[in-house]
Amino acid sequence: MIALGIDPGTAICGFGLVSLSDGNLRLVDAGVIRTQPTETDAHRLNSLYVALTELMTVHHPDCVGVERLFFQRNVQTAMTVGQARGVALLVAAQAGLAVDEPTPNEVKQAVCGNGAADKRQVAIMVSRLLGVALDGVPDDATDALAVAIGSAYRAASTARVGLAR
Amino acid sequence: MIALGIDPGTAICGFGLVSLSDGNLRLVDAGVIRTQPTETDAHRLNSLYVALTELMTVHHPDCVGVERLFFQRNVQTAMTVGQARGVALLVAAQAGLAVDEPTPNEVKQAVCGNGAADKRQVAIMVSRLLGVALDGVPDDATDALAVAIGSAYRAASTARVGLAR
Repeated sequence: MIALGIDPGTAICGFGLVSLSDGNLRLVDAGVIRTQPTETDAHRLNSLYVALTELMTVHHPDCVGVERLFFQRNVQTAMTVGQARGVALLVAAQAGLAVDEPTPNEVKQAVCGNGAADKRQVAIMVSRLLGVALDGVPDDATDALAVAIGSAYRAASTARVGLAR
Repeated sequence: MIALGIDPGTAICGFGLVSLSDGNLRLVDAGVIRTQPTETDAHRLNSLYVALTELMTVHHPDCVGVERLFFQRNVQTAMTVGQARGVALLVAAQAGLAVDEPTPNEVKQAVCGNGAADKRQVAIMVSRLLGVALDGVPDDATDALAVAIGSAYRAASTARVGLAR
C-alpha cells in the first residue's frame, strides 16, 4: 500500500510517498514542488495542480494525507496556504482517493509517539522508520513524509480492523 | 466581451457573468454553486471545480474576477475560503484567462463610485447597471455580478488604453 503525504504551500509544497507492506515502511519518493514567484497565484496553483496530478499518475497512491494547518495570527498566510491546500484536496478527490487530514500534533504522535515532538525529533524518526538518511532533504519534504507515514499506518490499521470483524 | 465574477466559498460560491459591448452592460448568467455539507472538503472542492469549469465551457468568458477577501479574526474561515479560492484561480488559469483579484473596496468603487458603499447600495447599482431586477437573487450571486462588472470595466479600459498607444 502506498501513501502520499502533502505539506501544502504555493511557493513550496512538500510531498512524500511511502509504501507499507507487512509492517515494513519503505521510501518511494519525496521532494518539493517550487513555483515561480514571478508568476501569478493562478498560474502557480496550476503548476502545483499539474505536478501533484503527475505524482498520482506515476505512483498511484492508495491514500493521501494533507496536513491540516493552523495559524494563530497571520490571516493572509492562512488564505494563501488555503489556496494550495484546496488544489491538493481537489487532486486527491479527482484521483478518487480518501483524504486523511491530520493535525500537526497527530502527525507527530504517529511518527514519534508524542504530539509535542519538535521538528528535529520528527526528522530523526522519519529517517529511522524509513531506514534512510535524509541529510539535505528539505524540511517540507520530511514533513510530507511524516504525514505519509501517519496516513499509511492509519489506513493499514483501518484495514486490519475491517478484517477482524 | 464577457466577464465572469466569482465570490468564492466552499458551501456557497457566487458567480455572475456580464457582457460589455459598446459601453452597454448586459446580464448573461448569475447564481450560486452549493455543495453538500455531508460531503468531505475534497469532494466539495471537486464539485466546485466541475461547476466552474462548466461555466467556462458554456460561456467562454474573456476575463475573470475573483474577489480578494480579508478576515480580521477567523483564521479557520480564511483557510476554508482560501481552499475554494484556490480552486477558482486554478479553473481560470486552466482556461488561459487573466485573473483580476479586486479587493471588496475596489469592487464597491467600480459599481458605486464609493469604496465604502454598503451591501444594499451595491445591489441597487448592480441592478441599475444591468437594467434588471435582482429580487430573490442570493447575495453571493449579486456580489459576484459586482465583481464581474468591475472586471469588465477594467478589461475594457485596458483594451482602450492599448488602442490609444
